[in-house]
Amino acid sequence: MKSLSWKKWITVLAAISTVLFLVMCGGNQSQNGGVAGGEDLQSIAEARGLTPADLVAAAKTYMPTGKHDDYFMFASGGHSGQVLVIGMPSMRLLKVIGVFTPEPWQGWGYSNETREIMQGGNVDGKALHWGDTHHPALSETDGDYDGQFCFINDKANARIAVIDLRDFETKQIVKNPLSLSDHGGSMVTPNTEYIIEGGQYAMPWSGKYASLKDYKEKYRGMVTFWKFDRKKGRIDESKSFALELPPYWQDLADAGKLVSDGWVFLNSFNTEMSTGGVEEGNPPFEAGASQRDMDYLHVINLKKAVKVFEAGKVSKINGFNVISLKTSVAEGLLHFVPEPKSPHGVDVTPDGNFLVISGKLDPHVTIFNFNKIKSAIENKTFSGKDDYGVPILDYDTVLETQIEVGLGPLHTQFDQNGFAYTSLFLESAVARWTLGGDFTKKHGKEGWTLIDKISVHYNVGHIAVAEGDNVNPDGKYLVSLNKWAVDRFGNVGPLLPQNFQLIDISNPDGNMQLLYDMPIGIGEPHYAQIIKADKIKSWEVYPEIGWNPGTQSKDPNGIRPGEEKVVRRGNKVEIWMSAVRSHYNPERVEVRKGDHVIWHITNVERAKDATHGFALPGFDFNLSLEPGETQTIEFVADREGVYPFYCTEFCSALHLEMAGYFLIKP
Amino acid sequence: MKSLSWKKWITVLAAISTVLFLVMCGGNQSQNGGVAGGEDLQSIAEARGLTPADLVAAAKTYMPTGKHDDYFMFASGGHSGQVLVIGMPSMRLLKVIGVFTPEPWQGWGYSNETREIMQGGNVDGKALHWGDTHHPALSETDGDYDGQFCFINDKANARIAVIDLRDFETKQIVKNPLSLSDHGGSMVTPNTEYIIEGGQYAMPWSGKYASLKDYKEKYRGMVTFWKFDRKKGRIDESKSFALELPPYWQDLADAGKLVSDGWVFLNSFNTEMSTGGVEEGNPPFEAGASQRDMDYLHVINLKKAVKVFEAGKVSKINGFNVISLKTSVAEGLLHFVPEPKSPHGVDVTPDGNFLVISGKLDPHVTIFNFNKIKSAIENKTFSGKDDYGVPILDYDTVLETQIEVGLGPLHTQFDQNGFAYTSLFLESAVARWTLGGDFTKKHGKEGWTLIDKISVHYNVGHIAVAEGDNVNPDGKYLVSLNKWAVDRFGNVGPLLPQNFQLIDISNPDGNMQLLYDMPIGIGEPHYAQIIKADKIKSWEVYPEIGWNPGTQSKDPNGIRPGEEKVVRRGNKVEIWMSAVRSHYNPERVEVRKGDHVIWHITNVERAKDATHGFALPGFDFNLSLEPGETQTIEFVADREGVYPFYCTEFCSALHLEMAGYFLIKP
Repeated sequence: MKSLSWKKWITVLAAISTVLFLVMCGGNQSQNGGVAGGEDLQSIAEARGLTPADLVAAAKTYMPTGKHDDYFMFASGGHSGQVLVIGMPSMRLLKVIGVFTPEPWQGWGYSNETREIMQGGNVDGKALHWGDTHHPALSETDGDYDGQFCFINDKANARIAVIDLRDFETKQIVKNPLSLSDHGGSMVTPNTEYIIEGGQYAMPWSGKYASLKDYKEKYRGMVTFWKFDRKKGRIDESKSFALELPPYWQDLADAGKLVSDGWVFLNSFNTEMSTGGVEEGNPPFEAGASQRDMDYLHVINLKKAVKVFEAGKVSKINGFNVISLKTSVAEGLLHFVPEPKSPHGVDVTPDGNFLVISGKLDPHVTIFNFNKIKSAIENKTFSGKDDYGVPILDYDTVLETQIEVGLGPLHTQFDQNGFAYTSLFLESAVARWTLGGDFTKKHGKEGWTLIDKISVHYNVGHIAVAEGDNVNPDGKYLVSLNKWAVDRFGNVGPLLPQNFQLIDISNPDGNMQLLYDMPIGIGEPHYAQIIKADKIKSWEVYPEIGWNPGTQSKDPNGIRPGEEKVVRRGNKVEIWMSAVRSHYNPERVEVRKGDHVIWHITNVERAKDATHGFALPGFDFNLSLEPGETQTIEFVADREGVYPFYCTEFCSALHLEMAGYFLIKP
Repeated sequence: MKSLSWKKWITVLAAISTVLFLVMCGGNQSQNGGVAGGEDLQSIAEARGLTPADLVAAAKTYMPTGKHDDYFMFASGGHSGQVLVIGMPSMRLLKVIGVFTPEPWQGWGYSNETREIMQGGNVDGKALHWGDTHHPALSETDGDYDGQFCFINDKANARIAVIDLRDFETKQIVKNPLSLSDHGGSMVTPNTEYIIEGGQYAMPWSGKYASLKDYKEKYRGMVTFWKFDRKKGRIDESKSFALELPPYWQDLADAGKLVSDGWVFLNSFNTEMSTGGVEEGNPPFEAGASQRDMDYLHVINLKKAVKVFEAGKVSKINGFNVISLKTSVAEGLLHFVPEPKSPHGVDVTPDGNFLVISGKLDPHVTIFNFNKIKSAIENKTFSGKDDYGVPILDYDTVLETQIEVGLGPLHTQFDQNGFAYTSLFLESAVARWTLGGDFTKKHGKEGWTLIDKISVHYNVGHIAVAEGDNVNPDGKYLVSLNKWAVDRFGNVGPLLPQNFQLIDISNPDGNMQLLYDMPIGIGEPHYAQIIKADKIKSWEVYPEIGWNPGTQSKDPNGIRPGEEKVVRRGNKVEIWMSAVRSHYNPERVEVRKGDHVIWHITNVERAKDATHGFALPGFDFNLSLEPGETQTIEFVADREGVYPFYCTEFCSALHLEMAGYFLIKP
């Protein structure tokens, strides 16, 4: 097919095109090191088997040296425990941010400060060394990304981390006191007042053992609202609270926006309350949790819940503020809407008017109308209650419409042209369909209509449109986060990369166009958000020499050149060291076996990119000291020997000489 | 400049080109999801500010969906502790291989087997959780890469790891018993008989404390030759040995090939034996180690050394076989050649005839002639001896020539057209120059002559030419491993990515052409090797169900479907579990607090890409189970509670339901 497509035109246009391409594209000089004379796009394309569409895709994604990408994508790393930062449209990995897993290139988890931050996520006092990051959430102002923070959940242990985008480093990790499972995080409210963390696999509400026989009585779901203090850049646990929920398996959440601001929507599966047990002849969870036709969309009045919390109508569970299910029902904080079974996402349209849900075993997207929901709640248009007394809104009353989009619909995002995009896992495709409401008038197209689809490779989970889940989508691009790659990349063994596919969605009247395949061989991303690059205003170097990134303020142990010293007090030896191209000061440090060593190191450089490392062999320490940064390590010199420390960054031509000896006398 | 270049031609050719491009490149259908009608390269290029040279570069590097890269690059990850696998020419990161740092996406370091492999690298019994990988070495047959194994050193703790390219996983880590520092690893001999590991910062030879005052007497350098058992895929420590060396700081090594097969070359710096001490008014190492004009290239007769070792002329140091410096001198195993000071690499030409060395403070590359070295040794043409009695060959006798290439020359690689390429750190450029000897005849160009340079951005360390350090270079591409990126990429905070630049060197009569900038935001690579993709024959799934990747054989605890069971013996509970789309069996596991749990999990899938994960919340375990794989975790159930385990891979539409409950009764 590809060679035919070429041949057809080439035969006719060969002579003229060769000349033209040579002239246009084969100039014998350029800023890029010189193009060899006589090179032309046609012969390169033929040699490499590129179609005309491939050349267009190449031109749309190629980023020449020194040019910067238009967007940053923040993708979760899945069970790598990290967050990936990717430039778009070039789809180049710009950084992996250490979050739940120690990462020595960044020194993340190898210094006092970074270990302390990680220990905020300890479970029962036990330090953890990985996480399962799922859904990054960029901070928002008025429902629009503001480029200040990124939040990320750890599904495996129910934790939330805060990343400061001034330096792209993790500043805080909090452990949910109620659950070990939080697939439904993290999402933010339109002004980042709260970070939403929904649970997944229900747990005994006590936090202790409870038999699965007592599942219905003793297991519970939850959703937690973490209060974010933007000025401090930290979650304020004391102002945070949770809602007790029935032991369904809650899934993803979304915050209302504009008309639905103040509300939170959270869907669920396993409302069957199956407890598995395939080994005993029970249906496995995959069947047991898929028996009923409908599960429940949870509609939560957050604004009202905050008032209930502030009125003190909470109990403490594991020391945490919890609004009981009974109180939620009594105060009208929680209502259910029947939703096609086992949905995998609820997505609020940019105008806040509609909620899009996809039951993953149903070929439709189901659209609920927020105003109808609000009215149904006000008018108590209930079709019944669940076993826990939660009122169920009448499905037909709140339904806007359904659209058949294809097999295995999962997640929906939006653009600025009134389109919605839904991932189709089973069909390996992305469907594009029109929003109703205002869209019909604005764009002269029929609303609530499937327009077209594009194949992806393969098995897409989430999709991300540029700014496609906030109030002002910027949908030039869509990224399909495919879970399987199969044949897309060269064989690198039985563990395959995933495949991020970049799709051009900029032409509302044309087709979607596949531009680029990006292998992901460093984690298993679930969701991503894409922000315009010019919204990120990060630091190039730390504001002052002696900066502590953990506190984002001056470190009392930061020093300037000339202030280096080693002080012994009893068996405590404290070192204040500087690092500069290309030596440490001091270069020799001698202690006695058994000494307690506290070692502060400050990079006194002010030049951008002048990072120094600090490796201490045999003691499992490596630091990454960005210009101005101070870090501290602390340990007992528990054996005699000589340990050559050195700078792990290639900081100058003499970087190999940036070393010293740490000696432990017997 | 760029817009001028466009305007110049566009003005003249506007009308015809628009039509032509539309026809050629804007066809309204393609396999890639359809090109919207009316798109043309010219308008895309103008909109994106691409020059004609940029379009050529885009066409040369773009990889359409489903097409596989022509080369794999294996790059060290520096202090990330890992190895990066990159497809070329697309420069896409295909995989990060966990080596010295635990990596949960791969389950690396989170299971019994993988922890045991990591513990092979313990220092004084202490487990380490990072490394500083520097120089990957692909296994060779007859001096050519054979695609079977990759070796990598940890400079920070003097360790070597073995990666099996059947599954791209680490199989062995060995700790050097003599040193904590091994910058001079890893390199292989032409049939991978030995893996070379040279030390760097000299250490007390005792392994114990010794004052820096006794540096000359008590500190020593070393080079270790690890015997590789290709059949077992493991290093055989008992057949390995080291050479004691003077306490200079040895640097990189290279093995001889063809005529120089059986020899090893190793350079050094700090032959001044400076011990630093800037804090006491001494010159810092960067100055102290740069005082003499010449350091010493170490010329080692490995073939002879093996005979000396096999004859038992070794002593045991820390239980390891060591040939003493005295024996080396007496047996003629070691000679020195003066080399311009502080060199950073020795590189043997593809024909084995010449050694290229760059003193990094000297603008020349210095080329020694192996045959002259051999003759000088035979004829004892010495200019003296060093303080340790090692004979120094006469510099002028063994020198072939010097070529002025530019500022801060570091490393040299070769292509098949008789060119050598040298990185210039201070000049931020790569120099291309001609080899002498046979080259002059073969290519009709003058030998030993600088041809041209290309700028890079910025501060290149190593370079890698495709197969450019073996006997058959395949130099279509060169990658410049730049240590600084500065302004090349969007700002992601004070810690910047490095920059890999892809350079087209395929035209021996034209210029080198910069094709692509790849940011590296996941480590700090030092060196890379590039191998033709078709040489890698990796497995798509494990050979049998119940496979143990650690041993590359069937695991006695691997099971087939139907063999699942839970067995209690006293307080020991052992579980044999299967994983298949989309459930575990068993789904419920209940133990008592204090039980010792041994949990074997087998992925019983046979489909490519059908990986399952296994996360156990609160207990810091995550496994990655490729099709057929068995892994084991073991722990004490030290607290009561309920822990929902689940599959961390998005393995099917019902992956969220692939879960179960692990209950610990009080």
